[in-house]
Amino acid sequence: MAMIKKPVNGMKDILPAEMAVRMYVINLIRETYAEFGFSSIETPVVEHIENLLSKQGGENEKLIFKIMKRGEKLKLDSARGEEDLADSGLRYDLTLPLARYYANHAGELPSPFKALQIGPVFRADRPQRGRYRQFTQCDIDVLGDPSYISEIELILATTTVLGRLDFKGFTIRINDRKILKNMAAKAGFKEADCEKVFIILDKMDKIGWEGVKEELLADFPAETVEAYLAQFREGTELSSLMEDSPVARIIAAVEAVRTADFQIVFDPTLVRGMGYYTGPIFEIAMDEFGGSVGGGGRYDEMIGRFTGQNTPAVGFSIGFERIVMLLMEKGFQAPNSRKKMAFLIEKKMPDERLTEVFREAEKERAGGKAVAILVMKKNKKFQKEQLAQEGYEDIREFFAR
Amino acid sequence: MAMIKKPVNGMKDILPAEMAVRMYVINLIRETYAEFGFSSIETPVVEHIENLLSKQGGENEKLIFKIMKRGEKLKLDSARGEEDLADSGLRYDLTLPLARYYANHAGELPSPFKALQIGPVFRADRPQRGRYRQFTQCDIDVLGDPSYISEIELILATTTVLGRLDFKGFTIRINDRKILKNMAAKAGFKEADCEKVFIILDKMDKIGWEGVKEELLADFPAETVEAYLAQFREGTELSSLMEDSPVARIIAAVEAVRTADFQIVFDPTLVRGMGYYTGPIFEIAMDEFGGSVGGGGRYDEMIGRFTGQNTPAVGFSIGFERIVMLLMEKGFQAPNSRKKMAFLIEKKMPDERLTEVFREAEKERAGGKAVAILVMKKNKKFQKEQLAQEGYEDIREFFAR
Repeated sequence: MAMIKKPVNGMKDILPAEMAVRMYVINLIRETYAEFGFSSIETPVVEHIENLLSKQGGENEKLIFKIMKRGEKLKLDSARGEEDLADSGLRYDLTLPLARYYANHAGELPSPFKALQIGPVFRADRPQRGRYRQFTQCDIDVLGDPSYISEIELILATTTVLGRLDFKGFTIRINDRKILKNMAAKAGFKEADCEKVFIILDKMDKIGWEGVKEELLADFPAETVEAYLAQFREGTELSSLMEDSPVARIIAAVEAVRTADFQIVFDPTLVRGMGYYTGPIFEIAMDEFGGSVGGGGRYDEMIGRFTGQNTPAVGFSIGFERIVMLLMEKGFQAPNSRKKMAFLIEKKMPDERLTEVFREAEKERAGGKAVAILVMKKNKKFQKEQLAQEGYEDIREFFAR
Repeated sequence: MAMIKKPVNGMKDILPAEMAVRMYVINLIRETYAEFGFSSIETPVVEHIENLLSKQGGENEKLIFKIMKRGEKLKLDSARGEEDLADSGLRYDLTLPLARYYANHAGELPSPFKALQIGPVFRADRPQRGRYRQFTQCDIDVLGDPSYISEIELILATTTVLGRLDFKGFTIRINDRKILKNMAAKAGFKEADCEKVFIILDKMDKIGWEGVKEELLADFPAETVEAYLAQFREGTELSSLMEDSPVARIIAAVEAVRTADFQIVFDPTLVRGMGYYTGPIFEIAMDEFGGSVGGGGRYDEMIGRFTGQNTPAVGFSIGFERIVMLLMEKGFQAPNSRKKMAFLIEKKMPDERLTEVFREAEKERAGGKAVAILVMKKNKKFQKEQLAQEGYEDIREFFAR
């Protein structure tokens, strides 16, 4: 078989310039979230197929990379379908593995547990510009705390990261699954219809009010639809519908304490796709991007799926890849912590002379420089120009003597 | 389907204490290798099945997690075997993806290119204590430089990392595939038999001289085997066999320049399993571990498999997981960069009071502390004891007033 130079379809090799930005962002995220008391953890990228297909992942379950059973367990002859061939798959997000992790280790972890997880996730989506099949997610979650203190902390931590990366004027949209349900119930939708109604409402950004109205009318009585939409238009009754939600208090606290330059607004049309949310939900909207650069919410029922006992949980996922993309587009340069030096040496050097060069390099490294020792090329002038372009500020030549 | 709490067989959830050690080691590695002029890059964890099965990986090719084709491409009915069902798999090391990466991007990269790659690799090996099916590798490679300057730099960089992690008295074993071949040829083995001879020689650590002799005698004439083993015993002719190898000069330079406390020794029995090495090979032996905690070598022919044109390449992989294990066993504590504070707040707090608490937390964070805001539990005494155990040095209480 011939060897293939390109990465697999939809995945990406990361070149040094982008990698420097990624590492800068990751370090800043780790540092900032540590200030807020989050502890780093890691889960395997491979997850049980049973967990991945447990209906926690909504549409993402259609996009799973499935891993084949191995050895005797793979029974090709008797396999009736895909489900008999795979025993695991690549995780499509970090939340499901976190719920499994917490269910497995709760006894060894503090309560509440504030987790930070950064790692690759995988979705076999149609590849498109800026959207890859392997991408890095970066989540903070608070497990075991029912209070909205956690929502406030998550929003403050995440916006602090964005502020330190010099993003300004963005918006945190916030809503609550309970408010969504209250509004639907008040308009006359049945509980069982809610999911369908919210899926249509979620398309607002794409199809607008008229589109939403049209799609609702296709399935529900005109009267109910009209009563529903009127609530959004008028907003007058919203305050009573918000009563059993902490959204107003979260907004008040975040507004009073925020350090970054952003606004936080209640948005009764915010749905967030994933089916597992149970309480407050939030999303970061950024004009520069024209879409969400992160989001999250409360999912008090997922851990119970593993343990049989519900455990409060809330998380915020920052859109790592989009943030890196925006920074790259802005021409952001990760600050170089060390000045780069190149030592050019003649091709043939006696051992003692070579030792001198290495000792000199060691001295410069100890003094805080980054030193690359390189063999002089025939076209030394060109080599030095290239090195200068690559950011080498100090180029020294060493000869055999 | 029931949800499963344990990680998939042979993989591991990483708890905060181990994670802190891992991050400390990774940061130290990145920092040290940057001093030596290495640039960080990343490749996808998923690789083309054609590349994974191209005979570059030796025994590891039997341990590949294969990923099933998706959608229309998966043709269960007409599949004659596994090979028709999988189009990709999880990488078993970082070297093969690096060769692909370099083949794909050489035009965009400096020459020589000094790469640092840290990331997860996967092998469906039988799980055993301390050995996992997903584990982190950490490789430095120099691509495009035929000189042994690169070997010296790789060994100095790697041993500097180990020294900074306070490892002492370890040994770098070094040999050269060319010396191995010279010795086999001189004894009378045919070129075609070399691979087999080296596989047997590689078992030395496990079966000893007698075992190696016995296995060789099973396949080769007594005379040849005797002549071969005599060379190792007597060592007298080794110097002539080493003439076309830079091993002696590498040893001299490393000994003259090293900063860490270790020895570097020529070991004519060192083979290193992987089939792709073409020149000097090396391995780190550590008494505390009783085995290799890293290794590498020159592989001048792998990139040519992708491009049709050979490109010199040499790499050193540090045994990240083993190093972390040894540090954990020693009771190593990653230095806490921030003092941990806990703010305990009453369950019901008026908004204004809550805001004060968050402002106070912000002040402490800005002052360099890590602050967790937690709701007071009924058994506050127990809660405070637990927090103290978790490393919170300063616990403050805030009441509604």
